[in-house]
Amino acid sequence: MQFWFEFASTYSYPAALRVEALARRHGVPLEWKAFLLGPIFQAQGWNDSPFNLFPVQGRYMWRDLERICADLELPFRRPDRFPQHSVLAARIACRFASEPWLPDFVRAVFRANFAEDRDIAQPEVLEQCLNRLDLPGAELLQQAQSPESKALLRAQTERAVALGIFGAPTFIVGDELFWGNDRLEAALAWATRRLA
Amino acid sequence: MQFWFEFASTYSYPAALRVEALARRHGVPLEWKAFLLGPIFQAQGWNDSPFNLFPVQGRYMWRDLERICADLELPFRRPDRFPQHSVLAARIACRFASEPWLPDFVRAVFRANFAEDRDIAQPEVLEQCLNRLDLPGAELLQQAQSPESKALLRAQTERAVALGIFGAPTFIVGDELFWGNDRLEAALAWATRRLA
Repeated sequence: MQFWFEFASTYSYPAALRVEALARRHGVPLEWKAFLLGPIFQAQGWNDSPFNLFPVQGRYMWRDLERICADLELPFRRPDRFPQHSVLAARIACRFASEPWLPDFVRAVFRANFAEDRDIAQPEVLEQCLNRLDLPGAELLQQAQSPESKALLRAQTERAVALGIFGAPTFIVGDELFWGNDRLEAALAWATRRLA
Repeated sequence: MQFWFEFASTYSYPAALRVEALARRHGVPLEWKAFLLGPIFQAQGWNDSPFNLFPVQGRYMWRDLERICADLELPFRRPDRFPQHSVLAARIACRFASEPWLPDFVRAVFRANFAEDRDIAQPEVLEQCLNRLDLPGAELLQQAQSPESKALLRAQTERAVALGIFGAPTFIVGDELFWGNDRLEAALAWATRRLA
């Protein structure tokens, strides 16, 4: 199962925090796929998150997310800025997608955004997330800023569009696309049936 | 629990077909609230369903709905016209909201739209739905077209906007709003906690 996520996406937060444990419990192999929603929204004529463009939906989403996090016993604090600039975090997650520490890094960044209200656009915040995993944060950050790393994320976002992805999180199992944190269980059930 | 639905809304179909049995199982009293999404979408600058305006989302929605109906063992056939004109059906459901036959009528109309691909804008189709419940279809249809009935539905749609409703189905429990067929279980859990 592929897990497509965007660090600035609200519903990607609970999904990112629970996807690995659930996939493991179902025996479903997991691929982490960071991408950017910005270019996808822009192609649709939106210059901001739909949750900001349509305030009634936005108000509902924040309350819904609060309830979901309470149910899952996940810490949640509504960030002051939304959406946050996620391109640097996404470049790191895309460049180091196969590293064993990647899931821990992804969770740390989501917690920084949605539980600690820290600004994940700041390199220092990401460097700290890496350092706390006993990784050479400054060095990895520099690698994630190389032209090759930038190209990797651009290509991955283009791949998302080609796959029909329009929001985050999205789970892909074979040719089937499941959109939203609330579709994680359905995606896993689909993957389990395919494996059987 | 209030169940706010729109006859033309795709995700209202599985919700309408399962809400009564689930609410009863949880001991949660249910109110059926028909309303129109058209005026709400128009106020947002949309002159059509967002599933038509944003075709990538639309394509996903039809596949998602197909999978959901398969899981629930509900018959499903993608209608030729979408969205269908639902104002007459909604006037009936609004005018006769407290009648004991209302839930059966609502389910029959949703099946006509999403399982039988019949045109629910046609008075004959609605009359047939009523007649099959041993009701005087022609007479009820006439009553539903009275100025008072039209005003009832307009007022109910304005009430929906005032409550912060922006899509269908929506479940309301106290001050809490739950949007989407996939939030029915969460709404019932909330209602059950309130009753306890």
